[in-house]
Amino acid sequence: MTRTGRLRVHTMSMSLDGFVAGPDQSLDEPLGVGAMHLLHGWMFGTQRFRDLDEAEGREPADALDEEAVDAGFEGIGAWILGRNMFGPVRGDWGDGSWQGWWGEDPPYHCDVFVLTHHPRPPLEMAGGTTFHFVTDGIHATLDRAREAAGGLDVRLGGGAATVRQYLAAHLVDDLRYAVVPVLLGRGERLFESLDDLPAAYRVASVRQSSTVLHVHVERAV
Amino acid sequence: MTRTGRLRVHTMSMSLDGFVAGPDQSLDEPLGVGAMHLLHGWMFGTQRFRDLDEAEGREPADALDEEAVDAGFEGIGAWILGRNMFGPVRGDWGDGSWQGWWGEDPPYHCDVFVLTHHPRPPLEMAGGTTFHFVTDGIHATLDRAREAAGGLDVRLGGGAATVRQYLAAHLVDDLRYAVVPVLLGRGERLFESLDDLPAAYRVASVRQSSTVLHVHVERAV
Repeated sequence: MTRTGRLRVHTMSMSLDGFVAGPDQSLDEPLGVGAMHLLHGWMFGTQRFRDLDEAEGREPADALDEEAVDAGFEGIGAWILGRNMFGPVRGDWGDGSWQGWWGEDPPYHCDVFVLTHHPRPPLEMAGGTTFHFVTDGIHATLDRAREAAGGLDVRLGGGAATVRQYLAAHLVDDLRYAVVPVLLGRGERLFESLDDLPAAYRVASVRQSSTVLHVHVERAV
Repeated sequence: MTRTGRLRVHTMSMSLDGFVAGPDQSLDEPLGVGAMHLLHGWMFGTQRFRDLDEAEGREPADALDEEAVDAGFEGIGAWILGRNMFGPVRGDWGDGSWQGWWGEDPPYHCDVFVLTHHPRPPLEMAGGTTFHFVTDGIHATLDRAREAAGGLDVRLGGGAATVRQYLAAHLVDDLRYAVVPVLLGRGERLFESLDDLPAAYRVASVRQSSTVLHVHVERAV
């Protein structure tokens, strides 16, 4: 029997006041005004990000930060994304010209399941990434992602609302996020209307790097 | 001219999901069900708490935790408390038999200003603590506390709603709190409806002890 893959969240970034995305999300600023750099800046110095855009002059990242980013790519056989993580298109998919934020060769290299209310044929990209558009809810999507992962784990990529849904259903096995020492004032919370969370989850570890606090929450039951 | 004392908050404790008090606050559990130990347990091993109740068998606290607790008593000339921090009585003060949570010799040893809508004569306790009941709002209360502090600082003792009010008015100079690696699921947030906070405050430091993350937020403008 094939091992059932775990559902894992990695490298979400949360402000001290609890926000994982800023207000006023848009095409230019998909994480909301100013939030991308404030929340995710700690990742930009990691090797994986340096490789992506060959940016020079960045300080190398802290070893704990490298580890946190790398861990998110280990043993992953499929991804699940909320629709807003895939793109800014709302309602139906129109002419289907939107193919994700990531260009022709997205950094997934596996099957990616996009939660949506609007059907669309699978979208095969370069590098082994295929986007599947799933309209029958979070449980069915997880089943399909697990099957595609073939015993490897499934990574839940966000956004916040999608992670909240899976957390509320106690379907996430591992939640790893970074608390960033900034205040945003407003935006989207991860921990909102999750009253029942302590019944099923426990804090496995908290470790401070030179930039953030790495938190690991795991399902306890 | 006398130096104007700073308004300081110390040793608030916040769960990872953002709550500084649990749900269902009551006389028996003034911080809400189960929250006192979960949120404030990190303080119980400090010298100051060991002195209070002579508890044996506790592990001595981390040096950073000792420092965080001690700092809250340095250079303080007066306190401000929200009414719920003073006691569970709601509405008017009745026969005035409620004299605070702390017995005959409260740990303040100075003037303590209690925010309330219901007048009551000052209450002089042993050890130099006098409770004053102020009915004309947060600004007037701060003025009176500053005057009483005579150039020393004023400590804002909580609860959460009171700290939020002073933060929203940008009257707090220093906010120090501890992020505790627990999840509460529900309760009272500190960072709620404080959209404008980043305009006036910045994160001065975050330091992890063996038990919590000590956060220092200060007014920047």
